[in-house]
Amino acid sequence: MTRVGLIGFGYWGPNLARNISETAGLQLAAVVDARPERLELATRRYSGAVPLTDPAALLDRPDIDAVVIATPMSTHVDLAKAAIERGKHVLVEKPLAPTAREAEMLGELAARAGVCLMVDHTFVYTGAVRKIRSLVDAGELGAMLYLDSVRVNLGLFQHDSNVVWDLAPHDLAIVDYLIKEKPVAVSASGSGPAGYHHESIAYITLHFASGFLAHLHVNWLAPVKIRRMLIGGAQKMLTYDDMEPSEKVRVYDKGVAFDPSDDEQRRRLLVSYRSGDMYAPNLDRQEALQLLTREFADAIRQKRAPLTDAASGARVVRLLEAAEQSLRAEGRRIAV
Amino acid sequence: MTRVGLIGFGYWGPNLARNISETAGLQLAAVVDARPERLELATRRYSGAVPLTDPAALLDRPDIDAVVIATPMSTHVDLAKAAIERGKHVLVEKPLAPTAREAEMLGELAARAGVCLMVDHTFVYTGAVRKIRSLVDAGELGAMLYLDSVRVNLGLFQHDSNVVWDLAPHDLAIVDYLIKEKPVAVSASGSGPAGYHHESIAYITLHFASGFLAHLHVNWLAPVKIRRMLIGGAQKMLTYDDMEPSEKVRVYDKGVAFDPSDDEQRRRLLVSYRSGDMYAPNLDRQEALQLLTREFADAIRQKRAPLTDAASGARVVRLLEAAEQSLRAEGRRIAV
Amino acid sequence: MTRVGLIGFGYWGPNLARNISETAGLQLAAVVDARPERLELATRRYSGAVPLTDPAALLDRPDIDAVVIATPMSTHVDLAKAAIERGKHVLVEKPLAPTAREAEMLGELAARAGVCLMVDHTFVYTGAVRKIRSLVDAGELGAMLYLDSVRVNLGLFQHDSNVVWDLAPHDLAIVDYLIKEKPVAVSASGSGPAGYHHESIAYITLHFASGFLAHLHVNWLAPVKIRRMLIGGAQKMLTYDDMEPSEKVRVYDKGVAFDPSDDEQRRRLLVSYRSGDMYAPNLDRQEALQLLTREFADAIRQKRAPLTDAASGARVVRLLEAAEQSLRAEGRRIAV
Amino acid sequence: MTRVGLIGFGYWGPNLARNISETAGLQLAAVVDARPERLELATRRYSGAVPLTDPAALLDRPDIDAVVIATPMSTHVDLAKAAIERGKHVLVEKPLAPTAREAEMLGELAARAGVCLMVDHTFVYTGAVRKIRSLVDAGELGAMLYLDSVRVNLGLFQHDSNVVWDLAPHDLAIVDYLIKEKPVAVSASGSGPAGYHHESIAYITLHFASGFLAHLHVNWLAPVKIRRMLIGGAQKMLTYDDMEPSEKVRVYDKGVAFDPSDDEQRRRLLVSYRSGDMYAPNLDRQEALQLLTREFADAIRQKRAPLTDAASGARVVRLLEAAEQSLRAEGRRIAV
Repeated sequence: MTRVGLIGFGYWGPNLARNISETAGLQLAAVVDARPERLELATRRYSGAVPLTDPAALLDRPDIDAVVIATPMSTHVDLAKAAIERGKHVLVEKPLAPTAREAEMLGELAARAGVCLMVDHTFVYTGAVRKIRSLVDAGELGAMLYLDSVRVNLGLFQHDSNVVWDLAPHDLAIVDYLIKEKPVAVSASGSGPAGYHHESIAYITLHFASGFLAHLHVNWLAPVKIRRMLIGGAQKMLTYDDMEPSEKVRVYDKGVAFDPSDDEQRRRLLVSYRSGDMYAPNLDRQEALQLLTREFADAIRQKRAPLTDAASGARVVRLLEAAEQSLRAEGRRIAV
Repeated sequence: MTRVGLIGFGYWGPNLARNISETAGLQLAAVVDARPERLELATRRYSGAVPLTDPAALLDRPDIDAVVIATPMSTHVDLAKAAIERGKHVLVEKPLAPTAREAEMLGELAARAGVCLMVDHTFVYTGAVRKIRSLVDAGELGAMLYLDSVRVNLGLFQHDSNVVWDLAPHDLAIVDYLIKEKPVAVSASGSGPAGYHHESIAYITLHFASGFLAHLHVNWLAPVKIRRMLIGGAQKMLTYDDMEPSEKVRVYDKGVAFDPSDDEQRRRLLVSYRSGDMYAPNLDRQEALQLLTREFADAIRQKRAPLTDAASGARVVRLLEAAEQSLRAEGRRIAV
Repeated sequence: MTRVGLIGFGYWGPNLARNISETAGLQLAAVVDARPERLELATRRYSGAVPLTDPAALLDRPDIDAVVIATPMSTHVDLAKAAIERGKHVLVEKPLAPTAREAEMLGELAARAGVCLMVDHTFVYTGAVRKIRSLVDAGELGAMLYLDSVRVNLGLFQHDSNVVWDLAPHDLAIVDYLIKEKPVAVSASGSGPAGYHHESIAYITLHFASGFLAHLHVNWLAPVKIRRMLIGGAQKMLTYDDMEPSEKVRVYDKGVAFDPSDDEQRRRLLVSYRSGDMYAPNLDRQEALQLLTREFADAIRQKRAPLTDAASGARVVRLLEAAEQSLRAEGRRIAV
Repeated sequence: MTRVGLIGFGYWGPNLARNISETAGLQLAAVVDARPERLELATRRYSGAVPLTDPAALLDRPDIDAVVIATPMSTHVDLAKAAIERGKHVLVEKPLAPTAREAEMLGELAARAGVCLMVDHTFVYTGAVRKIRSLVDAGELGAMLYLDSVRVNLGLFQHDSNVVWDLAPHDLAIVDYLIKEKPVAVSASGSGPAGYHHESIAYITLHFASGFLAHLHVNWLAPVKIRRMLIGGAQKMLTYDDMEPSEKVRVYDKGVAFDPSDDEQRRRLLVSYRSGDMYAPNLDRQEALQLLTREFADAIRQKRAPLTDAASGARVVRLLEAAEQSLRAEGRRIAV
């Protein structure tokens, strides 16, 4: 049994707590939060968990085997570092760190310490994204052409980071998981409302050597909640709409073919359009976070790297850094 | 009665023909198309229209008062120039010309010749876009923050131009009509499938001095047809979904407000979210093209500039040129 | 070439005219309408068609081979009878006649006269309904359990009939086409707003000997337009949403199975639910009315009964009569 | 503080437990379930609650002030009766009892014993239904014409009751809450798949003296989950779609007006259609069950009848009985 201490019982922490407590092999042994009312709520729900107000007190406890960090990003590195140094396994909220350098450093520390370091890239564990991955891997879409993601809603504005660092980690983690090829450059544009110091809307483009293009629209100032991806392949295309109660993924047997005899002289494009059936594969409906905490437990027990390991966390952070840099450089492409 | 000759009876020409024939003050007097089967179809429908295979023959007829040009873009300038020089009023398909310089030249020629030169920016005449304009003009949205447009579907690939020149004119014309401020720079990224020489997917960003951002996603390789705009203002926000059979425009009484007492020391963002009712204004359901041909007839009769005049046509082309230039320059911002 | 005279150029007549004029083998030779403005509109569009104000004048013309009747139902029988007696083929708007007896009488007259008598059950010719029929025929749904149809919108209220006679013919024709088994009884309930003498909303249930149930909701006073069918089979189920721009038909690999060992003593129901993929078959997108006018032309030329023949028209009318009777009898089941 | 014992920790019990534990004034003091694994789950979540396997043990405890019954309907009457007789307040899952007579008897017992008896008609406490009620009460819809409800999905089939008793209580409770006028008769039709002894699909019509009509479609064998109501008034109409993540209620400023000069001689219906804006009122998003448990606490403290009292529970059961009777009598109208 791995005894887990959770640091942070704010917005996301309660979800982690619930899933930790329901995962075989994990035990929610302690919860840390400086706010009395949050700590009281945690205690009411999990009477077996020791309530603590200071992370240091948790890290000092020898009966804690693993630490789950659900605090603001600016605290991730110090907390994770301290936990690793005390030989504890660590699961960190996304994004792993404010810089790729620090993310990589954490990975190296964990490797040296022989502990598991995992990032909470939740969407990688959804039935929808895993199904899409299996379709991509099986070559069902053909050559990959583009991935377009829209992740917009109203709020929650943050004090210390823009919308890119808040919403884009989800999409970057999905792209990192789905697409084997890695981007060579990133560009980004954005804007924000008067009175707010950061971008509340941003567009991020990932450029790949093959011509593949991934484009993200992240937005805290949208009147409706949209969570939709279009993924285009040369053979098939699909949509992934996370707001659909069912049939989140729809695969379209649609495509185009070009007649190679097309030439400049004829000045005509011979293109044929194929439009066949659409199908929506049945998806595993298990809660993603449950699969994630199980992966954490399994990786610890099997002494192996978890699916969303420190390296994937660092790759995502590197793209966030590049996007940020591009935002500050008039949208110039930043090589990664 | 203005006697109209239509050049081009392909994809869009039949719609123009029908609306010309149903507009008081206009008479469809001739149709030109080099393809016998298209000409025969036109004749069967409009027995009063003289069938011609050569545009020159049309331009030479003194009984033709106005010419409607629904041919590929590469022919627009020569045809429009010749028509203007013969003193005929001209309505041209979008985009007006391949270069802003030529578009402006046509505008100057028409002004000198005292004829009406109009561009078919159809969407400007829709009930939805006119309603949005009235909301923007009335200040209902508050300070404008962004406009995000998605215009994607499968096909139709074109031989001589990329998706930008085919689909973006619609959005650029809408932006030009809705937003008084004009963009100062354009950037664009895109890609295309193997076997095709142009971009089939592109993202275009219009940068404005005020911080307002307009972003377009145009795509010929999407599995579904999407025609959706999000427009964000500081007071309200709206969606415009042209695929909705009704309620195309939805206005959301949603927004955020920032507490000016927010400061670095407190390290907390005091933001309040407002989420009130949504409403979908009733829209004028008249066919946009009918309003457009009426505007053409009215502008001719009243000897005034039409709503979508040569200047708006030239502004749209200038943005297309800049987008094209940015595509060739790794997405660099091109000043306009 | 069959020379066709169209009687009635009101709401539906123009659609028939256009499709007649575009069908090989048919020629729109005359249009009849007592209203000068409608006749003028018809003449402007179809200069080759003789304009007439009196149906009698049409029926007397020997150069007319076929008559298409798009007038109010109350006139169908007299017009069709007169046309058949003059040896002309006849295509009649739905419903064929106000009573099943008259509908059958017309069928007998046509058979004796050796002319084609066809009913405009448009939906039978849609790609969606034909695809559903092919799925049903192939046994893909398994044993048929129910068909539920919702056909509601705002208006158009009619002077001389209730919503049942206006909207239900579509659904009854679809049921008649899809389901081999014929209903044994009909029940109906309805209501109408103050100031209107008929039902504007009605629910119709068709009872079948096998237990299969078909249920229709027709409504002129609905705030939204809904055109949706659910069809449940023991193996699979499907939805047919005619308001969807594409993917109108969706087939769900869903079902239940009951453990036969279930018994009263155990007081437990052993039921297993199957939830597999959904798929949306690609549909023929040809205009249904074009297929219908072609069927009319083909049936005439091949001297055979058309797909939607007088017998199907009479079956639909018999169900309408029974529904009407049930409405007047407190929803009692009326045997048919 | 009211100490509450919950009987039944199956499908719905956990939701009740959570809301009881989060309601000020209520304390979850005991949980009863005969299944060890359910009891263990309850104990893990609510360590302060005494686990019991036998309801009798709960009822005998003097430290229990109130009992919440979330067990199959067949057990409701005995459990509720025993609890009332021991002076405990009672909240019962819908439907309150298998017969209206028993439901009324429970109400009388509770009144005599001076305890609160409440039914869990959850939907009455949703923001959507309460908003609709306020619109109806304010007369915004005008004279009420009809209510049409569709509540369909796949499963869960039950051993001891048909779909009417499972799903229709929701709709009947909503109708009872929204519409002041009470129905005078009920009719119903239904069917079920081979291998199942009850109806899995049913249509229920409530007839009102005024002509108002309420119609319910309940179905366990539908491929998609639909939760949609249409409510038509003479002035406005609305839709209530519970599957929408937001904007569940949409109010349409649509209607018809009849010209009273319409007469038989003119044979024309002068009807004018009004189609104005649609709006979606902002809704209270509090969890309905939370409001319900608070109402239970408040009613106990204030010694008053709760909103969903025994009388409303009995009215709903009376309609269920009538629907059942109609199902067994070929859909005949059953007076209530």
